[in-house]
Amino acid sequence: MRHLISPLDFTVEELDQLLETASDIEKNPAKYQDACKGKKIATLFYEPSTRTRLSFEAAMINLGGQVLGFSEASSSSASKGESVADTIRIISCYADICAMRHPKEGAALVAANNSSIPVINAGDGGHQHPTQTLTDLMTIKSLKGRLDNITIGLCGDLKFGRTVHSLINALLRYDNVKFVLISPNELKVPEYIIENIEKAGAEYKEVTKLEDVISELDILYMTRVQRERFFNEEDYIRLKDSFILDKKKMSMAKDDMLVLHPLPRVNEISVEVDKDPRAVYFKQVQYGVYVRMALILKLLEVEV
Amino acid sequence: MRHLISPLDFTVEELDQLLETASDIEKNPAKYQDACKGKKIATLFYEPSTRTRLSFEAAMINLGGQVLGFSEASSSSASKGESVADTIRIISCYADICAMRHPKEGAALVAANNSSIPVINAGDGGHQHPTQTLTDLMTIKSLKGRLDNITIGLCGDLKFGRTVHSLINALLRYDNVKFVLISPNELKVPEYIIENIEKAGAEYKEVTKLEDVISELDILYMTRVQRERFFNEEDYIRLKDSFILDKKKMSMAKDDMLVLHPLPRVNEISVEVDKDPRAVYFKQVQYGVYVRMALILKLLEVEV
Amino acid sequence: MRHLISPLDFTVEELDQLLETASDIEKNPAKYQDACKGKKIATLFYEPSTRTRLSFEAAMINLGGQVLGFSEASSSSASKGESVADTIRIISCYADICAMRHPKEGAALVAANNSSIPVINAGDGGHQHPTQTLTDLMTIKSLKGRLDNITIGLCGDLKFGRTVHSLINALLRYDNVKFVLISPNELKVPEYIIENIEKAGAEYKEVTKLEDVISELDILYMTRVQRERFFNEEDYIRLKDSFILDKKKMSMAKDDMLVLHPLPRVNEISVEVDKDPRAVYFKQVQYGVYVRMALILKLLEVEV
Repeated sequence: MRHLISPLDFTVEELDQLLETASDIEKNPAKYQDACKGKKIATLFYEPSTRTRLSFEAAMINLGGQVLGFSEASSSSASKGESVADTIRIISCYADICAMRHPKEGAALVAANNSSIPVINAGDGGHQHPTQTLTDLMTIKSLKGRLDNITIGLCGDLKFGRTVHSLINALLRYDNVKFVLISPNELKVPEYIIENIEKAGAEYKEVTKLEDVISELDILYMTRVQRERFFNEEDYIRLKDSFILDKKKMSMAKDDMLVLHPLPRVNEISVEVDKDPRAVYFKQVQYGVYVRMALILKLLEVEV
Repeated sequence: MRHLISPLDFTVEELDQLLETASDIEKNPAKYQDACKGKKIATLFYEPSTRTRLSFEAAMINLGGQVLGFSEASSSSASKGESVADTIRIISCYADICAMRHPKEGAALVAANNSSIPVINAGDGGHQHPTQTLTDLMTIKSLKGRLDNITIGLCGDLKFGRTVHSLINALLRYDNVKFVLISPNELKVPEYIIENIEKAGAEYKEVTKLEDVISELDILYMTRVQRERFFNEEDYIRLKDSFILDKKKMSMAKDDMLVLHPLPRVNEISVEVDKDPRAVYFKQVQYGVYVRMALILKLLEVEV
Repeated sequence: MRHLISPLDFTVEELDQLLETASDIEKNPAKYQDACKGKKIATLFYEPSTRTRLSFEAAMINLGGQVLGFSEASSSSASKGESVADTIRIISCYADICAMRHPKEGAALVAANNSSIPVINAGDGGHQHPTQTLTDLMTIKSLKGRLDNITIGLCGDLKFGRTVHSLINALLRYDNVKFVLISPNELKVPEYIIENIEKAGAEYKEVTKLEDVISELDILYMTRVQRERFFNEEDYIRLKDSFILDKKKMSMAKDDMLVLHPLPRVNEISVEVDKDPRAVYFKQVQYGVYVRMALILKLLEVEV
């Protein structure tokens, strides 16, 4: 039995197949509409995340399956002191597969180790969120046609943003990916990620101003810069504009640059950008459903 | 693409058709049981409302469709600062239609303006709650046989009760509807509603005692009088009995007067009235399901 | 129309049939997968209980039916002052059967008295939790082959544990069941339960140390001993080890003794016991789904 705990759990080949399935689902949804008839996914969300939870639920329903679960810890047995290991053993009696979000790092792994059904990590604290990475990869692959030979800018909070770390690690497995790391000094990518990049022999640079580099990018991956991450208010006010994407900055970008964002977005992308055809962060949500459908099929070993 | 944001979004003709479909659903539920197979409704409830939410969910399930959503803001991305506009764009990737309840006036309209799926306003603050109005109209039409030529009493809090305002506006489109407005002076119908009535040339009167007028009514629409609406406790105690429906008051009413209530009911209708065949507020709940089924079919443009 | 409010609502014969159906479901799940197509269960949980709620939901989905409901009071109309009687009348318009958990004793009975659909009590305060008792009985019957001629130890908090009281009362209807009641003096079985045992002429003894009696048992039913039940911390520390099941105590037990627990478990069974084949508390969860499936079929009068 397979689980998905880390974005690197699948080989590049497995990933290719998964994205191919997802792409076929996009083209022929009707073919898959009864693929999981009689199957149930349990969505175990110990902290709320509407977008991720509903994406899994939509994915399972699109496959003809059903959903049960909870959307916050207070309505779970966790509030009575039950361990994750016990909960997953119980859930194994109720469902065929499970997606778990938990505030504690490693919770999904503990679940997988005690589960008799496949476990999908839907986010464990600041650690991993592999289906977001799958979504990001599918978006790039679908709209750019490739995962290699790209220059990708990652902008915003690169220190705490788990989606950024996972995406970098995932893209390092492809040839000739150049990383442009755009963040305030306080929120630079952690040292171990830089080491990963260097070990893989990939090109990268670190800058502090989006406008200086936006013209070089094939992909711009935006993330939120939270005010509370800064040491002082002055720095925040001085710096924040460099990490807000607006029409003016978009005018400096390539005609086919794609803008991605893991969402939710607060103000780091002006709404005026939403109508730009290069802004694909809402399409990305749609790809997230397809790739989760493909993932459920793979982990349940359903052939269509 | 159509939405339902205000009770007057549909023409009288469209409304007639909708109520006809609802009535056919009541008679032939089996005919509709797979009408929305493979379709999903998202119930986005930024504030809790069990009755309304479950009514939509029951409606969609009765049509063979599926449900996803959330039942309070805390388990939604709103708590992370996401705008309604962004949320609906995301939900558009997950579902085929959506019912939204939000504490802020106009939220559903914002959603509709940014949505690629039909949006049903399931209540936006004190503003609108159109499916309650559809429910009220269907109850009257089904049990009275007509929406014109009736004398309707509206009793209780007529100042803040959005269902009352909507129902008055909706009934003004029919011939010869007389309004008897029964409330304490503090909670009279707002001036702009009176203007609507006068503009439409409909008859009305305002009174402060239910017992004085109950014998004239074909329909009695009860609403809650909340203690906290009164300027002082004395007034509340002095007045409240005039707005509580009991057996004694029912004995003064016509044999075929119908009692409606949007529910939840607290104490404004004594439980002793529940068994009176003229008390149709629980039947009204059932009509609410039928009319929501008809509405979903209409907005999804499903032909049965 | 039948409801299930108390574990003794069914006769021994009815119970036998129910367990037989549950056992057939275990063996031939496919036979039942469309039995409740088009039917809906409402799960009305005024207090959270993931395990119980999801068990009902899994049961209904396994039967081809659908689910709607709420998982805590805050997202229900109860917060607006609606009575249980009104809520169930409304829910009767939405669903075909309902499972209700409520913090107040007697709430499920009130619901049943006002309902036009079958009501299952999923726990009403410290009072009753009949589907847990059905689950316990099915586990014993399935794994032990009988409900009579057994010696059962009940260990832990026997004073407040409603599952213990219900199980004793249920087993008193079978021949030659011996009860070994293992608890600190502060948490002994209430007098009225002892009276029930004596009236039925069953054998029993009360002891304070699990290790003294474990070798005699066919069944050990563990429950949680909550620290806050003790008069003082000293007593708790002195006593608690006698009520924790570990490998060492298991080594004194019969080779075919079964360990049951209503779950959630906190620390009263060491995790080292989980792998012992005699530890059947997670299997018990699976039986809980089967027996709830059988119950839904019975109350909905569905023949398969």
